[in-house]
Amino acid sequence: MGHRLADVSTPARLAAPQEGIGRDELALATRNHGLPLEALRHDVTPPGLHYVLTHYDIPYVPDDTPWPLTLNGRVRRTLRLDRADLRAFPQVTTRVTLECAGNGRALLTPRPVSQPWLVEAVGTAEWTGVPLRLLLAEAGVGPGAVEVVFTGADHGVERGVEQDYQRALPLDVAVGSDPEVLVAYAMNGAPLPPQHGRPLRLIVPGWYGMAHVKWLREITVVDEPFTGFQQAVAYRLRRDPDDEGEPVTRIAPRALLVPPGFPDFMSRARVVRPGPVALEGRAWSGRAPVTRVEVSTDGGRTWRDAEPAPDHGQRWAWRGWRHDWTATPGEHVLTARATDAGGDTQPLDQPWNRGGFANNLVQRVPVLCLDEDGTA
Amino acid sequence: MGHRLADVSTPARLAAPQEGIGRDELALATRNHGLPLEALRHDVTPPGLHYVLTHYDIPYVPDDTPWPLTLNGRVRRTLRLDRADLRAFPQVTTRVTLECAGNGRALLTPRPVSQPWLVEAVGTAEWTGVPLRLLLAEAGVGPGAVEVVFTGADHGVERGVEQDYQRALPLDVAVGSDPEVLVAYAMNGAPLPPQHGRPLRLIVPGWYGMAHVKWLREITVVDEPFTGFQQAVAYRLRRDPDDEGEPVTRIAPRALLVPPGFPDFMSRARVVRPGPVALEGRAWSGRAPVTRVEVSTDGGRTWRDAEPAPDHGQRWAWRGWRHDWTATPGEHVLTARATDAGGDTQPLDQPWNRGGFANNLVQRVPVLCLDEDGTA
Repeated sequence: MGHRLADVSTPARLAAPQEGIGRDELALATRNHGLPLEALRHDVTPPGLHYVLTHYDIPYVPDDTPWPLTLNGRVRRTLRLDRADLRAFPQVTTRVTLECAGNGRALLTPRPVSQPWLVEAVGTAEWTGVPLRLLLAEAGVGPGAVEVVFTGADHGVERGVEQDYQRALPLDVAVGSDPEVLVAYAMNGAPLPPQHGRPLRLIVPGWYGMAHVKWLREITVVDEPFTGFQQAVAYRLRRDPDDEGEPVTRIAPRALLVPPGFPDFMSRARVVRPGPVALEGRAWSGRAPVTRVEVSTDGGRTWRDAEPAPDHGQRWAWRGWRHDWTATPGEHVLTARATDAGGDTQPLDQPWNRGGFANNLVQRVPVLCLDEDGTA
Repeated sequence: MGHRLADVSTPARLAAPQEGIGRDELALATRNHGLPLEALRHDVTPPGLHYVLTHYDIPYVPDDTPWPLTLNGRVRRTLRLDRADLRAFPQVTTRVTLECAGNGRALLTPRPVSQPWLVEAVGTAEWTGVPLRLLLAEAGVGPGAVEVVFTGADHGVERGVEQDYQRALPLDVAVGSDPEVLVAYAMNGAPLPPQHGRPLRLIVPGWYGMAHVKWLREITVVDEPFTGFQQAVAYRLRRDPDDEGEPVTRIAPRALLVPPGFPDFMSRARVVRPGPVALEGRAWSGRAPVTRVEVSTDGGRTWRDAEPAPDHGQRWAWRGWRHDWTATPGEHVLTARATDAGGDTQPLDQPWNRGGFANNLVQRVPVLCLDEDGTA
């Protein structure tokens, strides 16, 4: 007796120096997953390879389960929309690169204890749904509205707080058209997979993943800033526990390269043969279009401009790039960095915060170049 | 210079006492993934939730890439079959529960350093393809044949050995009809996803995952036992490094339960309310049909028989079970164990070996039962 939620739900913490990944972090890492980096070759990420992070359980929603979406709060009339109602609105499809706000967390020193991503928490999909602004116009946003709160069906405990997953957007973002926020019911032309929010999720192009509320069941217009856990406690950039912190919003620029050659199973180190190696990858930023990608094959000492792929006109999706490298026997460290039209460039030193959010430190890919006879 | 493969590819080892999961194991855990256990509710695992383990990179195979499958070696005539040739053979669909041989590895003490699975490396799919025995009959197995070797397109290094992924089956298994081995080209009615072997993979119902060679490009009938890395070095049950070891073959019995209630994000502990709780799960064995599932709600001190779901007649797929529990405030440890018709029962003590294979130690699910006011 005498048990409380706090017995199983402890405060956030930083790992001790040299502390390995614990059982709790491993339990998250075995159920969630990143994009295997070789899958960066696909313009649109095939099903099952797109990164997945779920805070709590994936709700079990058998086909044809009624799923009324409620729009309420400071609106002129409350809406309760079933699947057919939603499909009566204009349908939009947008290609969007989605990245977890915690991507890069496990590379930080000290390391915030949470879902331990390296650099792979990303993916690109074609999302189809109804523009949120049309639903809000139908409901009629009332006077005094400042934010819109989105509630998912996923339920759990976090840092002692029992909750349905909830996040808010400022009203101007919710009704905006650049980006155009979607209430999505399809991914890559098929109904949403369970782990991506079946039957409905929010898509906020350019924003980190925490904004894209899955298993969406309620949209509430509010006249005070939302102070729920995922808004006011989690997903803020803090150096000290007592900081109010800046909210995590749009995706910082990042380039990733497809690790060339072939891997060692256990060390994941890469092996290439001497000669021409076509380096390729993707780059994206939720803040402004990517204008430059640079590649270094000597661990960041010298940089060359990569050749961008033709502009596909998809503002919210990653863009391809390539660079021809001539590998010579020995050890090399490959890296790439993206710069966007706002002047943001990926840092060479870690941008540390207690939550481990928005760490867009450049990727480093160690490569061993060996002759066919196995020597360098 | 003076680099060699051994610089990036080190011998197998056991973790030191208290050693956490390292960066190398984390890199595997972020790209591979298990079945989120709540997805045990689905008879057939939805795409993207089935466990995935790839030793090396997932080969990039754009649609319509030619993919001739060669049957050669001790055969009367070598076959070279394209997609249309394969589809001209009779087509079979089989529901199969697939489990990684390393499932349970990270729970062992001492812990073998490799892909760090807890209990979730499992999934069930409908696999469609051509019975292997029909392809071998078409080629004509020659005199002296003892095994059939399967070669995938995935290439990498493991413990210092550069290799294409290769595994063999005894000839009697390869030409057998119980189980009937398939060369599969579809999963759940769709072309194989890249991570599950697109465009072709082997399916060996009842065997652990290492036998189900993905990205299959060559089938070779041989007259000597195959001694490749994945057969003679990896995937053997050894207590000591110098043991020859027994080969890993068929899946040991296992039951898993859907963790009830809701989770804490970080600790993954479960919270339930007092009162009736329907416990449900799945059980399977590749050795013989599961004949009994028992449930304990007191950490294994007492056991009750679970109620099996109606027999679906799918010998190679998991079978559902349920048990009604009345939760009372306080801490509980739920567990379940399966027994098969061969008399094999899941152990309550770890079945340890150096590779961390076939660890079917019972699952333990700690649950905290709290009143709505948050006390127990």
